[in-house]
Amino acid sequence: MADNSFGRIFRFTTFGESHGVALGCVVDGTPPRLPLDETYIQGFLDRRKPGASRFVSQRREDDKVQILSGVFEGETTGTPIALMIENTDQRSKDYSNIADQYRPGHADFTYQQKYGIRDYRGGGRSSARETAARVAAGAIAHKILAHYYPDLTIRGAVVQIGTHKVNYDNWNWEAVAKNPFFCPDADAVAVWEAYLDETRKNGSSVGAVLEIVAEGVPAGLGAPIYNKLDAYLAAAMMSINAVKGVEIGAGFASTSIPGTEAGDAMRMDDGGKPIFTSNHAGGVLGGISTGQPIVARFAVKPTSSILTPRPSVNRDGEDIEVSTKGRHDPCVGIRAVPIGEAMMAAVLVDLLMQHLAQCGAVPEL
Amino acid sequence: MADNSFGRIFRFTTFGESHGVALGCVVDGTPPRLPLDETYIQGFLDRRKPGASRFVSQRREDDKVQILSGVFEGETTGTPIALMIENTDQRSKDYSNIADQYRPGHADFTYQQKYGIRDYRGGGRSSARETAARVAAGAIAHKILAHYYPDLTIRGAVVQIGTHKVNYDNWNWEAVAKNPFFCPDADAVAVWEAYLDETRKNGSSVGAVLEIVAEGVPAGLGAPIYNKLDAYLAAAMMSINAVKGVEIGAGFASTSIPGTEAGDAMRMDDGGKPIFTSNHAGGVLGGISTGQPIVARFAVKPTSSILTPRPSVNRDGEDIEVSTKGRHDPCVGIRAVPIGEAMMAAVLVDLLMQHLAQCGAVPEL
Amino acid sequence: MADNSFGRIFRFTTFGESHGVALGCVVDGTPPRLPLDETYIQGFLDRRKPGASRFVSQRREDDKVQILSGVFEGETTGTPIALMIENTDQRSKDYSNIADQYRPGHADFTYQQKYGIRDYRGGGRSSARETAARVAAGAIAHKILAHYYPDLTIRGAVVQIGTHKVNYDNWNWEAVAKNPFFCPDADAVAVWEAYLDETRKNGSSVGAVLEIVAEGVPAGLGAPIYNKLDAYLAAAMMSINAVKGVEIGAGFASTSIPGTEAGDAMRMDDGGKPIFTSNHAGGVLGGISTGQPIVARFAVKPTSSILTPRPSVNRDGEDIEVSTKGRHDPCVGIRAVPIGEAMMAAVLVDLLMQHLAQCGAVPEL
Amino acid sequence: MADNSFGRIFRFTTFGESHGVALGCVVDGTPPRLPLDETYIQGFLDRRKPGASRFVSQRREDDKVQILSGVFEGETTGTPIALMIENTDQRSKDYSNIADQYRPGHADFTYQQKYGIRDYRGGGRSSARETAARVAAGAIAHKILAHYYPDLTIRGAVVQIGTHKVNYDNWNWEAVAKNPFFCPDADAVAVWEAYLDETRKNGSSVGAVLEIVAEGVPAGLGAPIYNKLDAYLAAAMMSINAVKGVEIGAGFASTSIPGTEAGDAMRMDDGGKPIFTSNHAGGVLGGISTGQPIVARFAVKPTSSILTPRPSVNRDGEDIEVSTKGRHDPCVGIRAVPIGEAMMAAVLVDLLMQHLAQCGAVPEL
Repeated sequence: MADNSFGRIFRFTTFGESHGVALGCVVDGTPPRLPLDETYIQGFLDRRKPGASRFVSQRREDDKVQILSGVFEGETTGTPIALMIENTDQRSKDYSNIADQYRPGHADFTYQQKYGIRDYRGGGRSSARETAARVAAGAIAHKILAHYYPDLTIRGAVVQIGTHKVNYDNWNWEAVAKNPFFCPDADAVAVWEAYLDETRKNGSSVGAVLEIVAEGVPAGLGAPIYNKLDAYLAAAMMSINAVKGVEIGAGFASTSIPGTEAGDAMRMDDGGKPIFTSNHAGGVLGGISTGQPIVARFAVKPTSSILTPRPSVNRDGEDIEVSTKGRHDPCVGIRAVPIGEAMMAAVLVDLLMQHLAQCGAVPEL
Repeated sequence: MADNSFGRIFRFTTFGESHGVALGCVVDGTPPRLPLDETYIQGFLDRRKPGASRFVSQRREDDKVQILSGVFEGETTGTPIALMIENTDQRSKDYSNIADQYRPGHADFTYQQKYGIRDYRGGGRSSARETAARVAAGAIAHKILAHYYPDLTIRGAVVQIGTHKVNYDNWNWEAVAKNPFFCPDADAVAVWEAYLDETRKNGSSVGAVLEIVAEGVPAGLGAPIYNKLDAYLAAAMMSINAVKGVEIGAGFASTSIPGTEAGDAMRMDDGGKPIFTSNHAGGVLGGISTGQPIVARFAVKPTSSILTPRPSVNRDGEDIEVSTKGRHDPCVGIRAVPIGEAMMAAVLVDLLMQHLAQCGAVPEL
Repeated sequence: MADNSFGRIFRFTTFGESHGVALGCVVDGTPPRLPLDETYIQGFLDRRKPGASRFVSQRREDDKVQILSGVFEGETTGTPIALMIENTDQRSKDYSNIADQYRPGHADFTYQQKYGIRDYRGGGRSSARETAARVAAGAIAHKILAHYYPDLTIRGAVVQIGTHKVNYDNWNWEAVAKNPFFCPDADAVAVWEAYLDETRKNGSSVGAVLEIVAEGVPAGLGAPIYNKLDAYLAAAMMSINAVKGVEIGAGFASTSIPGTEAGDAMRMDDGGKPIFTSNHAGGVLGGISTGQPIVARFAVKPTSSILTPRPSVNRDGEDIEVSTKGRHDPCVGIRAVPIGEAMMAAVLVDLLMQHLAQCGAVPEL
Repeated sequence: MADNSFGRIFRFTTFGESHGVALGCVVDGTPPRLPLDETYIQGFLDRRKPGASRFVSQRREDDKVQILSGVFEGETTGTPIALMIENTDQRSKDYSNIADQYRPGHADFTYQQKYGIRDYRGGGRSSARETAARVAAGAIAHKILAHYYPDLTIRGAVVQIGTHKVNYDNWNWEAVAKNPFFCPDADAVAVWEAYLDETRKNGSSVGAVLEIVAEGVPAGLGAPIYNKLDAYLAAAMMSINAVKGVEIGAGFASTSIPGTEAGDAMRMDDGGKPIFTSNHAGGVLGGISTGQPIVARFAVKPTSSILTPRPSVNRDGEDIEVSTKGRHDPCVGIRAVPIGEAMMAAVLVDLLMQHLAQCGAVPEL
């Protein structure tokens, strides 16, 4: 299990290196007769696209997706959907200088140790370019969720950059699309802007914390014991490049909440439906969705490619200094919002299908 | 995929409810000709056993493990090893009062929503008693790791209880076994003791943060993209009852480390071997082990069973108050150390076998 | 993947050796709220039980099944169902003579080559006793099928013993239960009886061909490309001990049917439903069920344990003669009918669940 | 699990329809540092290519394979290898006449029943064109086997066409490449030629039996219980289009061999190595390879596309007559030899890797 597949019933397999011929994925298990075309998927890829502001890498990637199979006359057929993105400018650069160097924070050393060979161009398989394939697959997952639950939403935001957190009282989902940081707190934007300018000027970088929220998810999704919704989300988010931590609901902070408050209390609402009066659980109890919003947060480490030289070694066993030229995002975390949303969608679809399989019907909202 | 199996090549499947006839697991994929007996496995179970101090639940569980298959004349045969622990006192209690109640923080509501039925006795399948099966399976994983890497160690400790953290400067692995809290900081013990006594007196509970460290793991383990070592660990730890967050290395704190320091620098050591001069990565880069200690931390929420009454609802749709009688751990996290170690061992064995399968030989240290 | 699990969504994992402490299985993925008890499962095991006639082995096995988990107050809960059969007389025999011998036709040599160790008592893990666990798991599969399709039937028969075939014109399902051979042709019974008496007198044995037929299966089950219904059935049947061939519908004979007849023609029936006018396909086209009866046939080789001495070698590399004392079935195939039915049921349930997962509803008849 | 992936550790996922944009596969789990290029893979595809004689379809398919990923500077990198074959002439034909018809023997009806939609052009996903992807993946499997066992060979032949069998006494592997039928018996060629000419003239078709033989396979491959070598081969071969039966070694004929001969006897050879004096087992005992040649045979039904009109129905529920125009192979089985070889290779590689994973080293010959 090398293992380049994600999911069990709704499952996608990705392929491709940063500077190879093409990258893409094969999406297996999609229900038949859903409308699907390239324009729809392209919309998701464009949100992830770099070059939208001076805070993300200026590399021109077209990321033009092509559907190779699985769609007939505008509808899915139930057979595997292969999606391909050609790497149009893959031969344009000289990578000989990094061929033998292990860049700090990158996977150069570990790929070399594991495989004894690596495609060093742009990080090869370990490049975050692989996430384009996930976003494409995630677009199909979103489509499936919408088929079953038209009102279900999955939205993400950046809630912390470096040491600067948003003020949750200012949270406004509308704000997210109106700034280059996916920031839900309009007041934080100027601070982050100055902070990132300063960071880049220093030849450094910073990390970020992202929050992905799924609303309108019915109670009942998640398959204990080893396919719990929260465990599955943890794997999904941690598999994204540069992620170092994942938490659900109150997460690490829940250790400090007194037990008398930590368990979310319940009451019958006016419509005679049981509701929770808080959501420390982040929408998951015992690995199964509660019907409340599912809240996952993950931490992205600072961009590893920076201008400042750092000590490292090369394949010949010599001490060297490494600095990465070219324009890089001072905070790669910013671009991870659509990726986190894609992984949330993929997890929910797969668990929805697992539930259908075992329990015979999709749960009602 | 209901899915009660963990692992791909080294895979264990657990079964059993808190108050059913028996619980246990079937461990598949164990190499042949390893010495194995019940005494060895029992040693691991005993570390997890409650009743060792007044800070953990006083329920008398014998947790006596039996090997049903897969071992012949004291050695593994390569066939599945079934392990069973009988629930000796399963009929001793009246559970009728909780049969229809949804206890806050527990999985009562979600199991009922998902399955339309639940074994409510002691939490049924959602009880932490399931983790006894993992610890037993983990004992076999430890055995396999020792076969390939005699010096590899996996050790865990509690690093925070409620708001009280250990002082990492005082870290001493020897201390861990000498207090009832798996605490590596001898100075913290008295503080935690007083804090927990107070917590219990208040009818409340607190959470904890645990750290699991694997040393002597060779570089090269982990299978990108969707079976990355860190993603796999995240799923493993998050699948433990009551866990709400997982982080690797610097984890969430890495977002605030400047990029100039975040990527661990490398140098050649005196023996001509490449080493890292820090370990913010927690031993994982690009989803593959670096050869440094693998460091995973996870947060356990406060015990959900407390004496203080809390608002909830019952199956008849009535508002009720729920309080849990009987003696419960004021901090369930304490008992999770051997469980976290077991999951770390299971993940490493599985990835070691995957590496062997694809790359043809175990990596050298 | 050692791999002792069968199925993907409805999945059972078996364990146990012929003369170990116990054998059994863990059945995962069962829908909740189905009535289930030990008596029901025992009924299936009893059909497989030896000792019913002088044509099957006289070993007294009680094969008393116990449910260890997954059932609460007489209903399945959706959690794993562990089933155990204790080996009551496991220490009664001296196996030292076969400890070092490789019995012709048995797996002694290959287990030794693969694992370097084997539990030689009664064949250990390679014994057909493992199939008791399948039959128990299959009983649950039958229950699930009946839940979705009350009129679906799965029935098996022996259609050939040695060189003696049944006359299909005499086929009568009622006859199957009325003779010790699961023979659907009452006229063949006396012939088979004489033939087997003769065979045993000669210290020899013979093989058999079995046919398993599932009726009332809706069109639409089977998941191309690599989980086709017929491919899945082939694996299922071939995994049964001593099976050497599997065919679907016309099978090997279909090579000799002219193309003008081989493809089953279709017509609209009086009720306006499309029907097939023949069933050379055995109910499967393109890996998907057609709605016709699913017909699988498999060949079981002659019993390998016979009285006549045969040339072999031992672990010390010496030429020896091996003969197997004790009473053995002259034709093990006879006992495989309930096993083939169990595997058919397991395959259909798993594919039904897969269909539900992807396509959203069970197909109508 | 829709399930378009084959294999567990060495795993390929295929995609594509007969007349879509492209077809191909993603091959996961390949060991790193094996030399690989398009020319090597193309060689395997060319053996499968139609148009080589008047006995196989004259459709011009270029089947030009492209490597999209996973190979760097002529060597595999351990990351997924995506292979693509563009369908160059996919828009050239009018398929409106078959859009609503269910062709006898084809999967038109079942795909429609399962998915409610189908890409009818050339059979869409159910077309045997999918097997080009398997042959490409199999080429990589062959490469891996050669890496571990340079002398291992996998060869296939057609042993029966319609009612005409080869004479095994005339078997000559050299003959196979010298006639358009992959026939190992030079004397049978003229007979088959006349027979197939006659068949086509009659607007009919016939089936075939193929035999695939792997020599030089070490004892020890195969993972009991549910991943037995023979069970795995059965699934692999039965998943090939139009296959209706699979047998191993003596197969169905083994039912008629007396038990005194059926179990292959053993003796020590002159070199002190245990050998078998016959191979009724076809190289597999207890699901594990014995070290003898592995012999699998499978039956392919007659070509379903024939000129002679046959009764069928259409989507509107009307009785119709269907005949398939254009030139079609009178015996599709002939072209299945390279496909059977590819599946044999894929199974052996996957089981070799599984063995390595569990048992720590590849078995010696």
